[in-house]
Amino acid sequence: MNVFVIGLGLIGGSLSLDIQEHFVDAKIYGIDVSENHLQEALEIGIIHEKATFSDLEKADVVIVSIPVDVQLQVIPEVLDIINDDCLLIDVGSTKEMICTVVANHPKRRNFLAAHPIAGTEFSGPKAAIKGLFKNKTNIICEVEKTAFKLQEKALEIFSTLGMRIRYMDSKSHDKHIAYVSHLSHISAFMLGKTVIEKEKNERDIFDMAGSGFASTVRLAKSSPAMWTPIFEQNKTNVIETLNEYIINLQQFKELMENDNFPEIYNEMKNTNYIKQILNGIK
Amino acid sequence: MNVFVIGLGLIGGSLSLDIQEHFVDAKIYGIDVSENHLQEALEIGIIHEKATFSDLEKADVVIVSIPVDVQLQVIPEVLDIINDDCLLIDVGSTKEMICTVVANHPKRRNFLAAHPIAGTEFSGPKAAIKGLFKNKTNIICEVEKTAFKLQEKALEIFSTLGMRIRYMDSKSHDKHIAYVSHLSHISAFMLGKTVIEKEKNERDIFDMAGSGFASTVRLAKSSPAMWTPIFEQNKTNVIETLNEYIINLQQFKELMENDNFPEIYNEMKNTNYIKQILNGIK
Repeated sequence: MNVFVIGLGLIGGSLSLDIQEHFVDAKIYGIDVSENHLQEALEIGIIHEKATFSDLEKADVVIVSIPVDVQLQVIPEVLDIINDDCLLIDVGSTKEMICTVVANHPKRRNFLAAHPIAGTEFSGPKAAIKGLFKNKTNIICEVEKTAFKLQEKALEIFSTLGMRIRYMDSKSHDKHIAYVSHLSHISAFMLGKTVIEKEKNERDIFDMAGSGFASTVRLAKSSPAMWTPIFEQNKTNVIETLNEYIINLQQFKELMENDNFPEIYNEMKNTNYIKQILNGIK
Repeated sequence: MNVFVIGLGLIGGSLSLDIQEHFVDAKIYGIDVSENHLQEALEIGIIHEKATFSDLEKADVVIVSIPVDVQLQVIPEVLDIINDDCLLIDVGSTKEMICTVVANHPKRRNFLAAHPIAGTEFSGPKAAIKGLFKNKTNIICEVEKTAFKLQEKALEIFSTLGMRIRYMDSKSHDKHIAYVSHLSHISAFMLGKTVIEKEKNERDIFDMAGSGFASTVRLAKSSPAMWTPIFEQNKTNVIETLNEYIINLQQFKELMENDNFPEIYNEMKNTNYIKQILNGIK
């Protein structure tokens, strides 16, 4: 099985490592705009061989794991090249736009839109982790538009890597993910910004910040190159979540200004319900 | 050494466990408003013996680890009872108000205001953790107002438990901690609220939320009984941080509305600087 991974960052790299481990006949070819990342991926064993777009003809599976703006251009090009039995999996964090872009492509049936909900705040080949996808959810969108045999091939890979599969239309995916992922990133980035702006003396932050702050602000370490196009593609949903978040923060502030601490207590008590929701998340 | 711990939650309980381990001559007496917690603390070995306020006369060290509103009442009462050589350590998350309350107490020199920056989102005796304070920062306020011999006693305990000590006036403590701790909690609580409100179908949140969301919202599991009085005591500083946070979020939203994604990229890139700040935080 010839597997081509385009984009050898955290997600692409981790998929390569797991596929190598579980599919002994898989030969992994790597493609990346960064020659440094490509060389690094080869050296640390993420890929078996470097490749270029012209090699894609011999691909059985192509995984595209690059920023979502670049995906819009690259995926149709890759579809043009691959053979009729090849499966192209996109693993980007937004799904509606890419599904629209490929909707009328002659090889639409070769394409599968997926979003494995996994990752860390780090990026690049060295951020790749073995077993990253075990017990993680993988959202598949518009599965009915992918050829049945290729659906089967994709599911074999996903289930072998330990993923739980959920099916969703691309519009719902983007709407829900705005709340549980995109808003979290903005919340963390702006928390980081607020603290950095205020605390000119870094030493004070460093000394007083505990594990709670570190956890809440962790996502502010994430890659701007990856996240800017995600926010751009999911603009409408993200703005809606931001509006609601800001309104909730303003209400909380007003409760404080009015010394309505019994209601502040209730707000927090009600939100403690998040415990039950989080229980299943590692 | 007779050590009395008033309030056998996460912090009081963890201090008890560590003091027992490192000071073999320490006998730990527990006091708690909750008879259940008291009994639980005895059964799981957090304390050696239950006690009441009238026993405080024989204390060598008293640690008060209770919600900061109750502390304002309890600490002067405890000071009234303890003997002249006894050290009373307060470990609450706000420092200005308690320092004001005890300022003119005849036994002010027996009191030491501290804030060990350590903890988790859990509470109660069962949340106590051995070694919680190792390599954690402990902020001590107005150290010069504590008797020199009692400062020495406190530092011996803190350094034996592995804490790094920083000195600060109580006003600065409350101002800085509003940014790196109190704001993080509100940010997490309101994120949790926003997501819960929107996603009536819990199953969807559960399936799509990854480790990033879990990390960002983690503090929303925290105890409202502990946090409401903290926000109340630190109202002015917390409202200031909230204002700045809301302004930053609004600016981010406006950048999105104006399709100014190059600037969104810059905002995130600049905030990535948080990496350096967080490097030292476990």
